[in-house]
Amino acid sequence: MSLADASTLVARVARARDLLREHALDGLIITSLPNIAYLAGFRGSAAIVVLTPDAVHLITDFRYIATVEAMVREVPGLCLVRVDTSYDETLVRLIADRGLRRVGFEAAHLSVARYNWLSSMLARASGDGATHLEPIDRGIERFRVRKDVPEIETLRVAATMLSSVARELLPGVRGGSQERDVAAEIDGRMHRAGFERPAFDTIVASGPNAGLPHARPGSRRIRTGDLVVLDFGGVYDGYCVDLTRMVSIGPPSAEAARWHAAVLEAQTAAIEAVRPGVLASSVDAAARAVLTDRSLADAFGHGTGHGLGLEVHEEPRISRPRATPSGDPASDPGSVTLEPGMVFTIEPGVYFPGRGGVRIEDDILVTEEGGELLTDVPRALVVNA
Amino acid sequence: MSLADASTLVARVARARDLLREHALDGLIITSLPNIAYLAGFRGSAAIVVLTPDAVHLITDFRYIATVEAMVREVPGLCLVRVDTSYDETLVRLIADRGLRRVGFEAAHLSVARYNWLSSMLARASGDGATHLEPIDRGIERFRVRKDVPEIETLRVAATMLSSVARELLPGVRGGSQERDVAAEIDGRMHRAGFERPAFDTIVASGPNAGLPHARPGSRRIRTGDLVVLDFGGVYDGYCVDLTRMVSIGPPSAEAARWHAAVLEAQTAAIEAVRPGVLASSVDAAARAVLTDRSLADAFGHGTGHGLGLEVHEEPRISRPRATPSGDPASDPGSVTLEPGMVFTIEPGVYFPGRGGVRIEDDILVTEEGGELLTDVPRALVVNA
Repeated sequence: MSLADASTLVARVARARDLLREHALDGLIITSLPNIAYLAGFRGSAAIVVLTPDAVHLITDFRYIATVEAMVREVPGLCLVRVDTSYDETLVRLIADRGLRRVGFEAAHLSVARYNWLSSMLARASGDGATHLEPIDRGIERFRVRKDVPEIETLRVAATMLSSVARELLPGVRGGSQERDVAAEIDGRMHRAGFERPAFDTIVASGPNAGLPHARPGSRRIRTGDLVVLDFGGVYDGYCVDLTRMVSIGPPSAEAARWHAAVLEAQTAAIEAVRPGVLASSVDAAARAVLTDRSLADAFGHGTGHGLGLEVHEEPRISRPRATPSGDPASDPGSVTLEPGMVFTIEPGVYFPGRGGVRIEDDILVTEEGGELLTDVPRALVVNA
Repeated sequence: MSLADASTLVARVARARDLLREHALDGLIITSLPNIAYLAGFRGSAAIVVLTPDAVHLITDFRYIATVEAMVREVPGLCLVRVDTSYDETLVRLIADRGLRRVGFEAAHLSVARYNWLSSMLARASGDGATHLEPIDRGIERFRVRKDVPEIETLRVAATMLSSVARELLPGVRGGSQERDVAAEIDGRMHRAGFERPAFDTIVASGPNAGLPHARPGSRRIRTGDLVVLDFGGVYDGYCVDLTRMVSIGPPSAEAARWHAAVLEAQTAAIEAVRPGVLASSVDAAARAVLTDRSLADAFGHGTGHGLGLEVHEEPRISRPRATPSGDPASDPGSVTLEPGMVFTIEPGVYFPGRGGVRIEDDILVTEEGGELLTDVPRALVVNA
């Protein structure tokens, strides 16, 4: 169950306590499950963590008690709090019993309804010296964006596994199959390779469907003349990797070959732009400049990439800089500066609704010197009979 | 892409406009994707709906434009709003441009961070006559809890498909296989039966692992003497069904047989308690009474069931009544009164950490007269060599 060894968790918790000091908090309520997985090694479907200067209180229910009891024996500072009536009632009681007065919460991961309920219950439970709830933006995410050594090792293994799946799969993608059957074959291969589950719904988009960036695989039969987008990813030991390759059934048309060459060149330019100290938006700009040169910029409607880790879409976003009406650069995802340990996709694409499209995607780690591709599959267009 | 035909969507939208009248709103912001799927037939991974008295404004991005353009041609009142800079900026502009002054939002589906941002942006965008944001509790969910005719038809087909998967699967669950391989086989069978994807991570829990209500299938090999919990579900045309059956590898021990008989009796009592007009908690109580009689109540730590539909866990919850500190019966899930058209699971279980456990689960529709099981698989313990 535990995602990381005890010493890794202890180190993460120590860093996370910076948030308590910076915001002068007695405790921090963590409601995001990926953040709970990161900090406490817990991978169930329901939990709340309250981080205090001396403990990591993990609130969970009946279903996970036996598992967490075993974790508590291994991880110093981890305390199990069993839900009795409901999660949020248990949370209120914990805060009141421990006398926590200034408590942070994850503003991006608590709904207005829960916030309102917690506020009124805490006012009642703590009597005169009411607990103050302080919204915290980008708390644990700030640490998660730079992967630690065990995370990089896991992502490296996962990307190697995914690359093997792709290399074995691609020669067999041929005319006659339905998109959905190819998707199921990919899912089966990922399972046999050792992935826990797909990281997202596998995309197999053929012919005109390739012009929809997020097509669902359907009953369309792949046929001669199709370009086929194969976009799939797996979760290994909790961590997500993601890959896209293109297959042409029969020789590609001149137009399809031109699209593929342009996207490949754009992806290469973006990969070469990756190094510590540059803005995420400059990596996006490198891909976009190539497609603009080829008069394909309008067909590239999404960002160049997204972070990978416990979530399949996380920080950093590799996207255009944008004018933020609030004027707050922190709300501009393109303004992130790349740092060693960041892991993200590079996946430019071009889309022509009703006609087709191309996307090529790899996973990259920012190193001290530049970027290191974690995925390793030939990027050329695969042409099958 | 569309989940329902145009006339079904038009009827749902007409009912949903009750919320505008009840709360005297110019518009309602809908951020929950299942609620957006229900109301607008949209199944992508990102959208916002603004429901007004005369339109359903569907904000979505580049990836889904081609699909939504096709939907707009079919569904009266559906308007496409394309994201330019960001979703929430587009939302603010739409509200300001349309001059909406009193706008509801889904309090359970909007984070504090997004709410704070929207509030400040709307104050700026709408100038003097600032837009008021009104939190709405349980809006579209109120309608979704009673399935309409097309939904019932879809769930009926899905439950029949899932039952076939179970009947074909169960005789082949034998000693020697790893749990994770059996889980992959189930997923493959669900795919071939026509499901889009598993509704949740398939559970195969053998021997002691059966004592963990939410075990993840692992590398443990199933062996003689094991009880095996097989809990799986699929998504068909957007709708979720869910089933659990038990297999014994070799003849069950006296204890295992006693557990299974008690859970089966508890499930039967709960199924028989289903009819319109009774409290959801009384269905839970029927199961719990049987297990209490057998001195197994302490081993039954979860609720008896959960609603099924566009989400695999939705209203109604079939659970114990509980003392709500707020004194608000609406916050007590057990206080729901059953009505025709509700669809939920009945899944009592007993769990003994380190030793094993039993769960049996079926899906039931509340009819005018009582309950109709949608799943149809023999519930007896399957004993395989």
